Amino acid sequence: MRYSLQAAYAKAAQVRLAIFDVDGVLTDGSIYIGEQGEEYKAFYARDGLGMKLLQASGVELAIITGRDTPVVDHRMRALGVNHVFQGKAEKLPVLLALCEQLKIAPEQVAYIGDDVNDLPVLRTVGLPMAVADAHSLLADHVCWQTQARGGRGAVREMCELIMDAQGTLSAQLARYTEA
Amino acid sequence: MRYSLQAAYAKAAQVRLAIFDVDGVLTDGSIYIGEQGEEYKAFYARDGLGMKLLQASGVELAIITGRDTPVVDHRMRALGVNHVFQGKAEKLPVLLALCEQLKIAPEQVAYIGDDVNDLPVLRTVGLPMAVADAHSLLADHVCWQTQARGGRGAVREMCELIMDAQGTLSAQLARYTEA
Amino acid sequence: MRYSLQAAYAKAAQVRLAIFDVDGVLTDGSIYIGEQGEEYKAFYARDGLGMKLLQASGVELAIITGRDTPVVDHRMRALGVNHVFQGKAEKLPVLLALCEQLKIAPEQVAYIGDDVNDLPVLRTVGLPMAVADAHSLLADHVCWQTQARGGRGAVREMCELIMDAQGTLSAQLARYTEA
Amino acid sequence: MRYSLQAAYAKAAQVRLAIFDVDGVLTDGSIYIGEQGEEYKAFYARDGLGMKLLQASGVELAIITGRDTPVVDHRMRALGVNHVFQGKAEKLPVLLALCEQLKIAPEQVAYIGDDVNDLPVLRTVGLPMAVADAHSLLADHVCWQTQARGGRGAVREMCELIMDAQGTLSAQLARYTEA
Repeated sequence: MRYSLQAAYAKAAQVRLAIFDVDGVLTDGSIYIGEQGEEYKAFYARDGLGMKLLQASGVELAIITGRDTPVVDHRMRALGVNHVFQGKAEKLPVLLALCEQLKIAPEQVAYIGDDVNDLPVLRTVGLPMAVADAHSLLADHVCWQTQARGGRGAVREMCELIMDAQGTLSAQLARYTEA
Repeated sequence: MRYSLQAAYAKAAQVRLAIFDVDGVLTDGSIYIGEQGEEYKAFYARDGLGMKLLQASGVELAIITGRDTPVVDHRMRALGVNHVFQGKAEKLPVLLALCEQLKIAPEQVAYIGDDVNDLPVLRTVGLPMAVADAHSLLADHVCWQTQARGGRGAVREMCELIMDAQGTLSAQLARYTEA
Repeated sequence: MRYSLQAAYAKAAQVRLAIFDVDGVLTDGSIYIGEQGEEYKAFYARDGLGMKLLQASGVELAIITGRDTPVVDHRMRALGVNHVFQGKAEKLPVLLALCEQLKIAPEQVAYIGDDVNDLPVLRTVGLPMAVADAHSLLADHVCWQTQARGGRGAVREMCELIMDAQGTLSAQLARYTEA
Repeated sequence: MRYSLQAAYAKAAQVRLAIFDVDGVLTDGSIYIGEQGEEYKAFYARDGLGMKLLQASGVELAIITGRDTPVVDHRMRALGVNHVFQGKAEKLPVLLALCEQLKIAPEQVAYIGDDVNDLPVLRTVGLPMAVADAHSLLADHVCWQTQARGGRGAVREMCELIMDAQGTLSAQLARYTEA
């Protein structure tokens, strides 16, 4: 599957739910560990603003990740992300249940991942995306690969692509561009 | 707005107050989070020396940031920055109030940012600047974009540009170059 | 010693035990230290998945490192790595003892390192490897140098190379590619 | 002052004391700060081995830094560095006092720095060096600029250059290359 950017925009116009993987997507893949086994992650400030704008534009946000740490709960709460699924070795059933709950078709979902365990979900959603530095196997299964790397703006790029396709980007940026 | 470096120097010569955004400018945009939701940031040593030299040259320093964490208070105290405004979703009113308080015109202010929420301030100050890796929308609204990235010397570059334009750089460096 | 990739695959087909250095291999070499002397390390999420898949394919995993910190115990436990040897200034005796214990010949061992203290082990094992950014002295003593740097996918690359050579890679990825 | 590599080797052959700046040299310049103002630094594993080998070869090691944090004490103790001077805004008097104490002439000292506050010391020692990503003003005041950046091998490169010039490098590496 190798869509053009035009095809990605057509898919993005239908998106009602945007789902993000965590390690390697909302972060650069680094898992910081301390002596008591406690964990730390580094998120990217500009990704956070993108997520807030996308949510304000009317799109639902969710994360689904295979690992499980309170770090992610804290960050997602700060960003106002309600649908947080951690410790999910298999992501596809979680996606399907969430779609059911929200009355959103998988075709109306955007998902961005970086590794092979994202493939089942990527093959199911309407707008499958990968970060610039994703595992090479993902390239054939996504509509679009961001120019930015994971944890360095890939999520912001995805958020703006969806808003641009839906015609909501200018309105969301208006508070800054027209102030 | 696309000034030349010459135009940036002309503006810089008038600067009496330099204001820095935090995430993405004084840092590379990484927000480190631990399991209790506690936050960490990474500042750049050489930026710190630049800020001290600029302050010693007679320019007031301030930071205005949308987020709010004691991390920033600690670092700014260590650098002797008196004007610290955090948790400000709208930065422009803060800028205008500070100008009023210090009896400094916006035309005499330099500001460096990295994201779209910096645009209202950038459009108001005399010397608007952006880091090398700023959001692409900022390019048309700044006098000068640093060669260094945020958290990797962009602030140092701005401090030296202002001192150079004001003819104070050599004097500030003299303690090192003539010791 | 400069093998071709073909020669590396021939060696990899015989591997029953894969051993990883820690600093500079499972991390990018950064040792984070706090004010009480406590230590932190940053591991790479995609390396972790590679190690789990390699272990599931039937290959034993071990780490041997010259330094010693509970951080490594925590991460290795999370990945299910049973053979963890820390504080070993001399790595070769540890390797030989482990081979004896597991009834595995050194010729059936893969080892990946980044610095000169890895040389004695690299000269002994069947599949000696180095990360892309290893010390230049290692180049002449390894079968293959990964394209990825330490802490940024070098270990994942090694894991996939071994599984590919052993014909187990497709089966391990099947849960993702055929779901 | 622009020496050739040959000239740097001639100076290095005389070195009895090697002094390292901390921020930007033993680290990449990042100063990590937490919510209580506590500090963290990231050191590079391969630099540590270089310092140990250089010390084993008979050269004295010291650090002189303008900032002051227990983090540095912990790391220097782990590396066996006895001469640790922190909180020194002026580095030159510290250098001269240390030379006096150790009965070593400044001409027999190597120093590596990254910023303008290193200039007074760099102009005084026999072998002044700078990291690859040093402030541009240092270039004219050093014998040699490392190919590696601060916190990413610059110190290792300096240690090996000195040992190579003194004919001790092979002996120090023998435990690894001939084991």
